Amino acid sequence: MRIEILDSTLRDGAQSQNISFSVKDKLNMTRALDDFGVSFIEAGNPASNPKDAEFFDAALGMELQNSKLVPFGSTCRKNTNACDDSGIAALLYCGTEYVSIFGKSWDMHVEKILETSLEENIRMIADTVGYLVSNGKKVLFDAEHFFDGYKNNPDYAIATIKAAADAGAHTVILCDTNGGAFPELVSQGTAAARKSLPDEVTVGIHCHNDCGLAVANSMAAVEAGAGHIQGTFVGIGERCGNANLSTLIGNLQLKAGHSLVPEDSIKKLTEMAYFTAETCNIKLPAFLPYVGSGAFSHKGGMHADGVIKVRESFEHVNPELVGNRRSFVLSELAGRHSLIEKISRFGISVEKNSDDTKRVMDKLKEYERQGYVFEAAHASFELMVLRELQRFTPFFKICDYKIIESQTEGVNALANAMVKVKVGERFEITADEGMGPVNAIDKALRKALEVFYPVLSRMHLVDYKVRVIDAGASTAAITRVLIESSDGKKTWTTVGASEDIISASMTALVDSIEYMLYKNNVYNYMK
Amino acid sequence: MRIEILDSTLRDGAQSQNISFSVKDKLNMTRALDDFGVSFIEAGNPASNPKDAEFFDAALGMELQNSKLVPFGSTCRKNTNACDDSGIAALLYCGTEYVSIFGKSWDMHVEKILETSLEENIRMIADTVGYLVSNGKKVLFDAEHFFDGYKNNPDYAIATIKAAADAGAHTVILCDTNGGAFPELVSQGTAAARKSLPDEVTVGIHCHNDCGLAVANSMAAVEAGAGHIQGTFVGIGERCGNANLSTLIGNLQLKAGHSLVPEDSIKKLTEMAYFTAETCNIKLPAFLPYVGSGAFSHKGGMHADGVIKVRESFEHVNPELVGNRRSFVLSELAGRHSLIEKISRFGISVEKNSDDTKRVMDKLKEYERQGYVFEAAHASFELMVLRELQRFTPFFKICDYKIIESQTEGVNALANAMVKVKVGERFEITADEGMGPVNAIDKALRKALEVFYPVLSRMHLVDYKVRVIDAGASTAAITRVLIESSDGKKTWTTVGASEDIISASMTALVDSIEYMLYKNNVYNYMK
Repeated sequence: MRIEILDSTLRDGAQSQNISFSVKDKLNMTRALDDFGVSFIEAGNPASNPKDAEFFDAALGMELQNSKLVPFGSTCRKNTNACDDSGIAALLYCGTEYVSIFGKSWDMHVEKILETSLEENIRMIADTVGYLVSNGKKVLFDAEHFFDGYKNNPDYAIATIKAAADAGAHTVILCDTNGGAFPELVSQGTAAARKSLPDEVTVGIHCHNDCGLAVANSMAAVEAGAGHIQGTFVGIGERCGNANLSTLIGNLQLKAGHSLVPEDSIKKLTEMAYFTAETCNIKLPAFLPYVGSGAFSHKGGMHADGVIKVRESFEHVNPELVGNRRSFVLSELAGRHSLIEKISRFGISVEKNSDDTKRVMDKLKEYERQGYVFEAAHASFELMVLRELQRFTPFFKICDYKIIESQTEGVNALANAMVKVKVGERFEITADEGMGPVNAIDKALRKALEVFYPVLSRMHLVDYKVRVIDAGASTAAITRVLIESSDGKKTWTTVGASEDIISASMTALVDSIEYMLYKNNVYNYMK
Repeated sequence: MRIEILDSTLRDGAQSQNISFSVKDKLNMTRALDDFGVSFIEAGNPASNPKDAEFFDAALGMELQNSKLVPFGSTCRKNTNACDDSGIAALLYCGTEYVSIFGKSWDMHVEKILETSLEENIRMIADTVGYLVSNGKKVLFDAEHFFDGYKNNPDYAIATIKAAADAGAHTVILCDTNGGAFPELVSQGTAAARKSLPDEVTVGIHCHNDCGLAVANSMAAVEAGAGHIQGTFVGIGERCGNANLSTLIGNLQLKAGHSLVPEDSIKKLTEMAYFTAETCNIKLPAFLPYVGSGAFSHKGGMHADGVIKVRESFEHVNPELVGNRRSFVLSELAGRHSLIEKISRFGISVEKNSDDTKRVMDKLKEYERQGYVFEAAHASFELMVLRELQRFTPFFKICDYKIIESQTEGVNALANAMVKVKVGERFEITADEGMGPVNAIDKALRKALEVFYPVLSRMHLVDYKVRVIDAGASTAAITRVLIESSDGKKTWTTVGASEDIISASMTALVDSIEYMLYKNNVYNYMK
């Protein structure tokens, strides 16, 4: 069966503790979700947040292949009309084909939280959906607290979604907003909703994980007739999170034969999960189904032996199908195939069992042990491969550098950095200052290199992300730095990892500059 | 309904990546699980591991009130007898009332992994269970891969568990060893097992989370007649983990009215989860149902207002019932109402419309604009409130500091830091070195302050997190630092934000030290 999915990482996900996205993060995530092939991307509330409004302005110019962008808002307020509502005006202003609004389906909420009558709530829903439809929008209607409402007053809960459908809603999404429903209730409520709505209205499901049942509830809803699933790619979201879409894609498409995303995307499931985690600036939990680094790791000797004899003896699916890796002896074999595929994208062909492949594989593993990740740092990965295959000549060498940071009587001085570089047989020594040590050395290094490579003046840093990965060791823990750079046309990302944040930053900075010079040299694409 | 639970944190949990227990850890965990009131504690395999054997020796002397200790092993090998098996002898040697053994229920495993006949496998099961029973043991029989077996060859899978029951097994546990089953299969398999076994044999369920369904599958099994659930308290375990018992206790006892643990234990659910995480040396994931720090946190103003009006409007259960707390994420969105509630926890009462409240609110907003977040940094929040209400006297002043970081010919020198502090009228100047600038200044600062406050030697950093929040501005972007500190008993978290990572780190470091000294001074709790 074809099932639409809506990723709400950028909306419901942004409501998790400690998650916040820049406009750039949101644009990158949108591009990645579109490439991956989700049906809908719920990307924020333009009325509640100026950053979201800025995002929709910027996103209007993007050409998406697979996904529809959806701004999120609510019905009009009690005793007002949708046409006078600034929040609804903000939704229209986004210029998207689809919009999403939520309204109340739980009678208790209407009476005690909205403090209005059950009839007025129905009017608000009908008025808002109708107004949006008359303005040419396709409307996703989120029936907030549908299952609590269905339990408490089933007739009223059904009346709210019928009002939305009658007013022209394209899809009606049944929300377990508090995450307290069990599969049986979800199954009953979804079946009742499906029965009461016209066939052309899709029924959707939106689950939270407060009982550890978000995935099971979403599957129960599909069983009962839902054709649209909402969630977030790695499960982030308010409180205990939303339904994890990467798990659901694995369960429903890979194992149950439904169609949620393009078939080709399944093998990018793990990569997409890592990309999402990086964009959220969290560590992807090792134990996540399908995509976690531990999902196919075998500890006991018996399990390892079993898997070697018969793969399925201790694996419910083949990790290669989702782009993940078994982790013990055999991982080398599992990984080589995709490694070769990656390398071939740089126009280099290597044999699966060659020394070259083995050497790159070993280097990759060594780097990963040190805390590097290449999933989100393709430029560093390409440089690593080129260096290992002796196809790369460095454009410069940093002879030495020194950074001084000081504070006197509570007043911060700017950080100072001195650097000495060597290009060919020539040296350049220079210095600069900046906000903090990394900014200072970044500026000094580029100043020195521009003497030799004026083209570097076109390059600038777009994003700088820091993660501490081995948390146990406190301020001496391993730090991973990701740097995204741009020449105004293309962007590329590099990585560094070290116990010392400056050292990690330097590695990523050097890679970002080398990559620009390499691409410029080889392809001359920036003339 | 009365449902037994078996906690396997010390056995299956020990098979997760990066988890290992000392004998002392195991004894502490056993004591805590007994106090909490689980029915069974599966504590290790005495034959495979000398540490486990040592544990059972030590545990024999413990008087447990609620729990039965269970050593874990397997059936005898093919073409041998249980009475000659050293592993089974090791189980008997533990001296427990119950023992647990696993055997194969999937015909594929018997033929391809064990490489023996289906009949021989049945003989091994019957012989082993019978031998243990004849030696006075109550036997928990784990039917490994029961659901895969049931799918592939239902008659044979049922035959294996009947063999165990006929030989006198006390409980037969249906295991989804690979974690690949969906609730429907679990339901069917459990019903078939229940029907085929005598009433006096309890049917149990053991699920893994490889499809994100371990909790749902365990509940489906209970629905189909299982009266015994295996899992681990916070869900750790091989690959994606085991069924999370704290979630199941919440779902089945608190919400569905079954009886799994003594009624009094429910309110200790959160405490027990933290204790377990502490013993496993992991950080309890914030998003865990019922027990995570984020499980009852409300971010948006609308949710916060709703919960204040009617608790159940955005909470599926009352957090107090499980010993957890509601938390309002202290963001600009949050209103004065939740601010006052937070302040009252410091023993300070302020009026909603007072100047004090307004001043603290304004300060909070100002800090948030600068990039601070207090949702995860309660210690810094408390200090901010105390400072703003003029209830705080600083314990020290940093007069100045200087940090030097350098690299020569590709070799990193250790970073050096000098610092001068003032306490009362006295000064102390000192220096230290470290891995990177933050580690160096951290060490130097604490070295200087310990001269005045020896109690600081008890303090250590537990976690250090860095986030770049205004991503657009590249290496001069705003950096937020979160530091978690501990005195060996309590932990607290502080925050700093600045364009300069060192400055941000210093703010969080200074707060962490001030907080320790303040708590020590006021409550003298560390005497």
